[in-house]
This record gives sequence, C-alpha cells and structure tokens, in this order.
Amino acid sequence: MIRIAIAGYGNLGRGVEAAVTNACDMELVALFTRRDPASVKTETDIPVYSMEDAVKYKDDIDVMILCGGSAKDLPTQTPDMAKYFNVIDSFDTHAKIPEHFANVDKVCKESGKVAIISVGWDPGMFSLNRLYGQAILPCGNDYTFWGKGVSQGHSDAIRRIEGVVDARQYTVPVEAALDSVRAGENPTLTTRQKHTRECFVVAEEGADKARIENEIKTMPNYFADYDTTVTFITKEELDRDHAGIPHGGMVFRTGTTGLNNENKHVIEYRLQLDSNPQFTSSVLTAFARAAYRLANEGAKGCKTVFDIAPAYLHPASGEELRKNLL
Amino acid sequence: MIRIAIAGYGNLGRGVEAAVTNACDMELVALFTRRDPASVKTETDIPVYSMEDAVKYKDDIDVMILCGGSAKDLPTQTPDMAKYFNVIDSFDTHAKIPEHFANVDKVCKESGKVAIISVGWDPGMFSLNRLYGQAILPCGNDYTFWGKGVSQGHSDAIRRIEGVVDARQYTVPVEAALDSVRAGENPTLTTRQKHTRECFVVAEEGADKARIENEIKTMPNYFADYDTTVTFITKEELDRDHAGIPHGGMVFRTGTTGLNNENKHVIEYRLQLDSNPQFTSSVLTAFARAAYRLANEGAKGCKTVFDIAPAYLHPASGEELRKNLL
Repeated sequence: MIRIAIAGYGNLGRGVEAAVTNACDMELVALFTRRDPASVKTETDIPVYSMEDAVKYKDDIDVMILCGGSAKDLPTQTPDMAKYFNVIDSFDTHAKIPEHFANVDKVCKESGKVAIISVGWDPGMFSLNRLYGQAILPCGNDYTFWGKGVSQGHSDAIRRIEGVVDARQYTVPVEAALDSVRAGENPTLTTRQKHTRECFVVAEEGADKARIENEIKTMPNYFADYDTTVTFITKEELDRDHAGIPHGGMVFRTGTTGLNNENKHVIEYRLQLDSNPQFTSSVLTAFARAAYRLANEGAKGCKTVFDIAPAYLHPASGEELRKNLL
Repeated sequence: MIRIAIAGYGNLGRGVEAAVTNACDMELVALFTRRDPASVKTETDIPVYSMEDAVKYKDDIDVMILCGGSAKDLPTQTPDMAKYFNVIDSFDTHAKIPEHFANVDKVCKESGKVAIISVGWDPGMFSLNRLYGQAILPCGNDYTFWGKGVSQGHSDAIRRIEGVVDARQYTVPVEAALDSVRAGENPTLTTRQKHTRECFVVAEEGADKARIENEIKTMPNYFADYDTTVTFITKEELDRDHAGIPHGGMVFRTGTTGLNNENKHVIEYRLQLDSNPQFTSSVLTAFARAAYRLANEGAKGCKTVFDIAPAYLHPASGEELRKNLL
C-alpha cells in the first residue's frame, strides 16, 4: 500500500481523503493542518497532526499531497515539503509556473525527492490534451472553453461589491462558438464570443440593485469583456439551487493533414464535473501513484503532467494494461 | 533533423509521408517497398528502395515507421526491422497485442533498439484515454463508440457476397446511447444499442437485391447483432459520395467521487476524422519523435503509448511546454 499524507483540509484535502479511500493500492496515514489538530473533524479516521510536526513523520509517508492555495500557500509550502517528502501540488497560477517549477526542482535535486506540480484539470488534464493535440496535428488551432461551472474568483469579486450579501458566478461556453469549432471552421473568437457570465446575487435589503448590476457588468477584467447576466435571488434560493461546485469545459485541437492540407480533423476532450475540487483531488491522487513509483525507481526532481508516462498513473501492471486497455 | 524512413506505401505510408513533411524537426530519408522501386510514384521526392535492401541504410535512419498491415505484415516485419532500426507500428489486432509485444521486446532487448507498437487512435489515443479515465475515476464505467466512419473490414465482407460489385459500410454510434452516457446515466448497452451499420452497395446488373440485403443483414459477427440498413446505389454514386475514409468516435469514462459516491463526472474524448489513415499516420509520426528521443537517452525495448511521457511527442522543449501549454 502506498502511504499518502494530506497537507491542508479544505475542499481539496477532503477530496483527496475520499479519492485515496477509493483507491485500491493506497492508505491515508496522516493529515497535517495549520489549525489546532484537535479542532479538525475528518470524514475518515485519518490521524491529524500539526503542520509544523510534519517532518517527524517523514519516514512514514510515501507521498504528501499538498492541498493549499496557489496564491499564498504553495509557493513556499511545496519547496519546503519537497525537502523531506515526495510531493504533489495543484499550483494553478499559469504565469508563475516556470518560477515555481525552478524553485521546487532546485530543492528536489538536493533532497533526492520527486515533485509533480500543477496537477489537476487545468493545469493538468487540459494541458495534456493541448500537448497531445499539437503533437498530432501540428497544422491547426487550439481552443479551450471552460464551464458550465462556478468561478470562485468571479464569485468573490461580486461579493466585494457594497450591498452584496452573497453571490455565485457561472462561466458558460457559448454554444455557437462550440458548434463552429466542432464543425472544423477554425473560427477566430473574441473573449465575448467564447464565454458568457451568469451571476446570481443576494443583495442586502434596500440595496440599490441597479447600481450593483452596473458595477458587476462594468468591472474590468472580470466582467466588462463578457456578455454578463445578473439575477437577484434570495439567500434561501442561493443555498438551495447553487450549493454545488460544478465545472468542466473542453479542449479542442482542430487541424489538417495531407500535403495540401486536404483533410480536416477535430479532437475534443470534454469534462463535465459535478464537483470541481473532488475531480481535481482524484487527478492529484492518480499522480501521487506515479510519484511513488518514480521515486522507487530512483527518479528525483520536479516534474509536471507532461513528464509522466501514463502507465505510472494506473494501479494495474503494464502487462494487464496492454491486455485490457490497449 | 530526425531522419525518418517509411516501410510500405499504401494509405498509411502516404499519410506518414505528408505528416513528416509537415513536421518542423523531421526529414524523410527513405521509402522501402516490396514492389519494384522504379514503379512507385511518390508524392514527394523521397528516395525509394527495395525492402530487402533496408539493412544497408541502417546508419542513415533514426526511426523506421512501419506502414504494413496487422494481419500479414507486422507480426514478422516489426521484429525483423527492430533488429536494425528503432521502429513504430500500428499493430491493431487487439487480442494479439501481448504476443506481438513479447516478440518485439525480445528482439529490441538484443539489438538495443526502441520499438513503439500499436500506435494510432484505437489502439492509441483511445487506449490512452481509457487509461487516464480509469486512473482518475476508479469508481466508474468505460464506453467506447466508433464512427461515424468507414469500416474496411465490413465493406470487404459485403464485397465477398455474390452479385456485389462494390460496397461501403459506415459504423454509426446511436445518438440515444451517447445522450445517456453524456448524462452520466451509466447505461448497460447491448451491441445493438451502441452502433448501427449503414451499407451502400453496388449490385451487378440483374442481381437479386433482396437476397444480397438478406445475406448482409444476417451475416454473423459482422451484421447480425446490429440494426443494419442497406441502400443500393450506382457505381457512380459510390465513387462520388463515398470516396473518403472518414472515421472517429468517442471514449468516455463516467464515474463518481466522494466517500458516498455523491458526485458524478463525465470525461469524453472525441475524434472526428476526415481521413482515418492520415490521422493514424500523424499519431505514428508524433510517436516516432518520442522513439528517437528515448533511443538517444539509451532506452531500449518494446513500448506502447502507455509508456511514453507526453513531452517526448512534442517538438518544443520542456521549458517551452511548461510556459505555453501547462
């Protein structure tokens, strides 16, 4: 059994707890938290320890799955933990990945550990499909669509507006754009043509709803470049109808083959996820299996999903995979 | 530049010729044929040699892409060529893959060469998506649909019926089945519920069309288990409307996450291909890049798509991939 530990117990940590429990070849050996361990109520009977004591358990853990946030936690936590553990993280600030990779790789080369960073679905499975698509169809175009799904960042931006009690924002791909891409038309799409934004807002009693709606629709970066709809609902409706955290989307590679580019092809990878964090956790858990196997083979250093041969992710042997899945 | 040779010049070989020409980091150095080389007219100015002279060029070729058939050519050709060359093949007799793998691996271990077998889209990209899907969602179901596309095997089976001049058979996924899978309903589907078979048949003048239609619809293994439609057309209509070799299909993994399986997820990988052989050739060419790089690193032995880290397939460096695609 591969001995897995979790660092951080938010939505992602809880998802890893479930994913490891569902895996046939893994066991949960520790949960590390920055809160008082006695205050943390877990879903399973995993032992809970203080984050600062983690190093004491370094010989008892094969892979540490880091479930902190990309903004504040992972930039320091991943390199710190890679001194003692093989680690997996879901660092998703795309622009800062090269810097994060370099920091983690340096530590891993010294400690002899394996890290796999930026694991999840975007970055993660979507990235893999962008790579496979470009490698197979070098003459072509990439398209990534997100949704329908909840954007936490956009929901938070609405909540910061005066008079807003709570909000939920859905990113929705535009059907006409999807149809055009699927038809192999290789459209050039503006931001507005790709996604719409649907906002469900709970306003304070007596708040100026027209002002709130205007502030949302004109907010730079977040909403101004999109067709945005704002619907005011009650707190009860929000809790009843918008409690989930669904997400998903599609990665397309469309391109041509032939000496005269005479044949068109469309590759589509699509995710429909009831729970964004639980799916991300499931991807993290599969890559933890790869980190364990790579470390056992003597590998060290920082890696990404691009560097992992797919067979490392699946519990079955190479022989079984060739027989049953190839 | 990676020096590529092609063995066999049918639809697949012609596709590789185009794919290598479109690749930024490869050059075509030789085409080997069992025909008289002087009789082979190529699309590009690639030198054509006799297959039996291939070994003379072993130091001039980095990777040999084998474009023969799975029934008669590849079982002997792949191990023979792997004595002298890094090789790629598209061996697609699923049941015989373990045996083929063992034969090729034995030769490669002795010769120090790299082989990647069963490359294409099924086996190939579809296999990869079955693996990724199972690894991420261990609690779930697999579905593979093919089409809409031309099945050469089924077209050939119709052509063998007395009174048939020519025929084209399309495999078509059933929309209701796709809808159910996409909705996460995890249906149990019979053969008949998954695909229909559409046959376009040119009959000899005066042939008994009712008998031909009956022979098709009742043919065991090929048609009896499917809802099959037969449409008689003229040779001119066949040549005008059914000259292409389109194919494609979808691989789904549907499953649940959470300690109580409370959240559903649907992963879909879909291909829509104008030209089945050209797309397969494009996949072969991408994996030739991986074989070249692996051989340069000192790897040897037989591998499949499951064993190849995705980064090996793309011409860009790891640094560029992390910056632009992750």
